[in-house]
Amino acid sequence: MDVFIEPIGKLINEFSKLPGVGKKTAQRYAYKIISMTDAEAKAFAESITNCKSKVRYCRVCGNFTDEEVCAICKKRQGNTICVVKEPKDVIAMEKLHEYKGVYHVLHGVISPMDGVGPNDIRIKELLNRVGDGTVTEVIMATNPDVEGEATAMYIAKLLKPLGINVTRLAHGIPIGSELEYTDEVTLSRALLERKSI
Amino acid sequence: MDVFIEPIGKLINEFSKLPGVGKKTAQRYAYKIISMTDAEAKAFAESITNCKSKVRYCRVCGNFTDEEVCAICKKRQGNTICVVKEPKDVIAMEKLHEYKGVYHVLHGVISPMDGVGPNDIRIKELLNRVGDGTVTEVIMATNPDVEGEATAMYIAKLLKPLGINVTRLAHGIPIGSELEYTDEVTLSRALLERKSI
Repeated sequence: MDVFIEPIGKLINEFSKLPGVGKKTAQRYAYKIISMTDAEAKAFAESITNCKSKVRYCRVCGNFTDEEVCAICKKRQGNTICVVKEPKDVIAMEKLHEYKGVYHVLHGVISPMDGVGPNDIRIKELLNRVGDGTVTEVIMATNPDVEGEATAMYIAKLLKPLGINVTRLAHGIPIGSELEYTDEVTLSRALLERKSI
Repeated sequence: MDVFIEPIGKLINEFSKLPGVGKKTAQRYAYKIISMTDAEAKAFAESITNCKSKVRYCRVCGNFTDEEVCAICKKRQGNTICVVKEPKDVIAMEKLHEYKGVYHVLHGVISPMDGVGPNDIRIKELLNRVGDGTVTEVIMATNPDVEGEATAMYIAKLLKPLGINVTRLAHGIPIGSELEYTDEVTLSRALLERKSI
């Protein structure tokens, strides 16, 4: 870092903290900042502090919001709850513009290897939400990995005795991919869950 | 952007302004900011405003500095001047830890197509610096493209009558590359400028 003067070196160091950004990329970003006008750089810096200070989690579903309760919880009916691992999964689902229900963000998945148990994620809050009887379906949309599957199964076991229809996103061959290049686990799962047409 | 709440959307928009950053990458960066502690995010934002406000150009050579005159101009003897296009080229040269002279940053190259003439870049300042007779060699280290070559030739013509040894960085096959994959312009240049061994 000794070839950089201190303010540039510091900025490169900060940019290096972003995911997938190495020293060379951080350097390019820093040069870009220097080439900006004062107003542009100020707006950039402010959007960081602004985002960090304003964004919090919805009291009901745990999604990103800048209010007490998020816009989705405010607007939509809560008959169907889609359970996801992280707030960014809500954004992935919302981009479809197809799902019209509400969400519940677990903020993690059960992972004994990492010391995360059922009490460390927002399962209790989910049970409280379904307790009032208006919820008819809970869609488990955790990731299709070991922890995601285990979490989905665990929650399903808790919800089924309450008479709630618990569903899971379908797993199988991605649309547009080729059978030849589909990994074996996905292919065997697609075979197992084949449907009559 | 309607799936993002306003502070996140704004931050994604700012990150998208960085070179080579698309919407998806900007999104990842924004999530990273949200996952930071308040202090970390504040430090990040401050390093941007700090860098932008402190970094200016050295009065002598035009390099990045946070003082009136840069550390290189202060410390080193000015017998040899290396002429580069931009401040980041100084950093590229300094990383070698081999060059012990000073620099002169042109802040551009002559490019009639873009409306940049000899008076739009820091050529006058260079002539002022070599005027006192202490400079013995000027190394032209502009990029090996049309504009860089033309600028080097233009400056060389101005300096030679003053009895200054004007040199140019060698062009040829990069070390470690293969002849087979070297582009034709570079290869013909390497042939033209062959040296006896």
